[in-house]
Amino acid sequence: MNRILAAQIGAHVGERVRVQGWLHALRKMGEVNFLVVRDRTGLIQAVTSLADLAPIEGLQVETVLQVEGRVVEAPAAPGGYELYDNTVTVISPVTEPPPFSLNKNRIRASQPAFLDHAVIGHRHLQQRAILRLASGVMQGFRATLNARDFTEIQTPKLVASATESGANVFAVDYFGQPVYLAQSPQFYKQIMVGVFERVYEVGPVFRAEPHSTRRHINEYVSLDVEFGFIDDHFTVMALLSEVVRGILSHLGTHFQAELALLAVEMPRLADPIPHLHITEAQQLLTDSYGVTDALGEPDLTPEHERLLGQWALEMHGSDYLFVTGYPMAKRPFYTHPDPARPQYSNSFDLLFRGTELVTGGQRLHRYDDYLAAARARGYDLAPFETYFEAFKHGMPPHGGFAIGMERFIMQLLGLDNIRLATLFPRDMMRVTP
Amino acid sequence: MNRILAAQIGAHVGERVRVQGWLHALRKMGEVNFLVVRDRTGLIQAVTSLADLAPIEGLQVETVLQVEGRVVEAPAAPGGYELYDNTVTVISPVTEPPPFSLNKNRIRASQPAFLDHAVIGHRHLQQRAILRLASGVMQGFRATLNARDFTEIQTPKLVASATESGANVFAVDYFGQPVYLAQSPQFYKQIMVGVFERVYEVGPVFRAEPHSTRRHINEYVSLDVEFGFIDDHFTVMALLSEVVRGILSHLGTHFQAELALLAVEMPRLADPIPHLHITEAQQLLTDSYGVTDALGEPDLTPEHERLLGQWALEMHGSDYLFVTGYPMAKRPFYTHPDPARPQYSNSFDLLFRGTELVTGGQRLHRYDDYLAAARARGYDLAPFETYFEAFKHGMPPHGGFAIGMERFIMQLLGLDNIRLATLFPRDMMRVTP
Repeated sequence: MNRILAAQIGAHVGERVRVQGWLHALRKMGEVNFLVVRDRTGLIQAVTSLADLAPIEGLQVETVLQVEGRVVEAPAAPGGYELYDNTVTVISPVTEPPPFSLNKNRIRASQPAFLDHAVIGHRHLQQRAILRLASGVMQGFRATLNARDFTEIQTPKLVASATESGANVFAVDYFGQPVYLAQSPQFYKQIMVGVFERVYEVGPVFRAEPHSTRRHINEYVSLDVEFGFIDDHFTVMALLSEVVRGILSHLGTHFQAELALLAVEMPRLADPIPHLHITEAQQLLTDSYGVTDALGEPDLTPEHERLLGQWALEMHGSDYLFVTGYPMAKRPFYTHPDPARPQYSNSFDLLFRGTELVTGGQRLHRYDDYLAAARARGYDLAPFETYFEAFKHGMPPHGGFAIGMERFIMQLLGLDNIRLATLFPRDMMRVTP
Repeated sequence: MNRILAAQIGAHVGERVRVQGWLHALRKMGEVNFLVVRDRTGLIQAVTSLADLAPIEGLQVETVLQVEGRVVEAPAAPGGYELYDNTVTVISPVTEPPPFSLNKNRIRASQPAFLDHAVIGHRHLQQRAILRLASGVMQGFRATLNARDFTEIQTPKLVASATESGANVFAVDYFGQPVYLAQSPQFYKQIMVGVFERVYEVGPVFRAEPHSTRRHINEYVSLDVEFGFIDDHFTVMALLSEVVRGILSHLGTHFQAELALLAVEMPRLADPIPHLHITEAQQLLTDSYGVTDALGEPDLTPEHERLLGQWALEMHGSDYLFVTGYPMAKRPFYTHPDPARPQYSNSFDLLFRGTELVTGGQRLHRYDDYLAAARARGYDLAPFETYFEAFKHGMPPHGGFAIGMERFIMQLLGLDNIRLATLFPRDMMRVTP
């Protein structure tokens, strides 16, 4: 007899079937008892006599087992079916209770306790759904870009020099020589525009930022895009809009069960997504929201972003808003300036429900501009030499963006801490499990 | 006028079109000159007068440019079409010649010179095709597993302890505390079998192995699979066969141009792939190939593997061969022993054309077995504690494998060095570009 899955049980009413999985719950009532098996697709309830339960006498939930029984329609049961006349066989016995309950509606553990035991905690149906959505975000990201003729790359994570400003990198002992963990695939993805024109990468990035907030972790999965032959940052924003739309549509089509289980309110994505230049945003905050600390500042505060998110929702029915043109002083040296107002940049942030979700923009593409920009910031040119060679030999106008995968999930689900959207988070206090 | 690509030109005969790309080659003959543009899909030849060429006077190949011209059928031209009556516009001028020629049939540079300038060298059509195939291998791997209900995971690369034997790990300075770069996602993918039953990961792994061979690099992309509710390692081998078949079929369907350009001889994949227990393989080598150093040895030599590859091809018409049952002493401690002959393991190698391509097997799944196996090898249990918790709370029989992506490409293409199949290789001597 072949194993069938919880999700397939409705096709086998009246048949004897074999299911395998984890002992999710056991309610002993005496004559009639309910044993619930969890597999990768859901739950199956088996109605058992005490005699049926003899093989799991003394065992705990999470025991791996097999149940063979007859499928009966039971509208009141989880999933709508039950198994009767069951034979229970133990595959892997469990004798210790889990560190916290895995079969209640919500996980009732402190966040540190949950994170300490995440290897077990991820089995909880809600937590499992969160991580499934993460896999869906990666799939939707790739599918959208593959359909637009992008090529996937995997760039090295061990690098000889810092890619951004030189701060906040982790040092690695590389056969006695110091090298660093890549903070982003920035230069590599730009270089590969010279090869494939359009590239993306899904991979880990490492930030040695010594702060501890609910929005930051020190290793995360970055969804990186870079492409050439653009007009300016608006070409990049148009692609990013399509990518976000593609991800949400992929989730809606292929991950309905997870979205329903987590009661996700799908975002309102205006087409096109509204955009404001940072100076316009600051004027709006001053004129319409009574803000007094915005005009002339080089950046927006989190409170400014929150108000702008409110504005985008009220005025444009959009959970998303682009803010463009951040001052060059606040952007990395490879950012392309606004040709008309060179103190501003051809860059953008995408805000989602009033919080930054994505940063991107147009990059410099001329070799001489790189030399000048690096020198203007006082950077040592030597570490950049091998990267700059790509620009010496012809690069088209190009740009791109990076989406933090865990942050995308955190904001989509309204989680209050990014660690709950992360498989096994790393922060200043935690490198296990 | 919208840009069209080289691959689309046949649909525009008689029309005026705009193409953009790199100046791949320029043959000046006087009256009639040939300017070849390279874009992400191929080459387009423009037939130009000397006057047409005025905008690129003094510029070098790899200049990024735009050509607007009229499409004419020309069976003798590269791609079968040419552009006439052209207007050439420079997008990014190049004034220095490339470090080696990018428009000849083969790259004529020493391997170190190529690797030093790989940021440019990858633009060569053959090299570009190799890296495109790498993206196709990843796509085919994921597509095969997605269709079988696997969930993608991205596991941390910063780990508190070595996952395998403790040797050959790179140490990272993590806020003053030593942590390590993951040698493999081994424990994490096993843990996640407890959540999703079936998981895969595509990501970097780091091996601090201080050797310099043509087959090894110190950072590579690992295609990792792990799944539960298996019978034994033969269930794993059956899935691996489907994955290899899925990857090759994906390449054959979607990457024909690259396979043709590189004149790839597609492998013969017998169904099922033949398999030999290591003791059978050693007997065969002794009896049929006159080998005198095989019987009773714990492992096969590269020469043994070569002869076995020859045998599989001659006797089974297969470029692939499984060797099973390697002695436990040669396998990691988490390997499941052969229940009938516990000195041998439920593990395998997949040989491709006589060279190891994939290693895999069944793993231990009972908590007590982990404790006993780790103790028997004298390992300190403390670093494993958080991982072993997954086994304490119920794990099904499970197994998996890992395919080295660059090695897959190297062997498929018959490259003589894995560095030529690697985007930017890292070895003892090289961490740039």
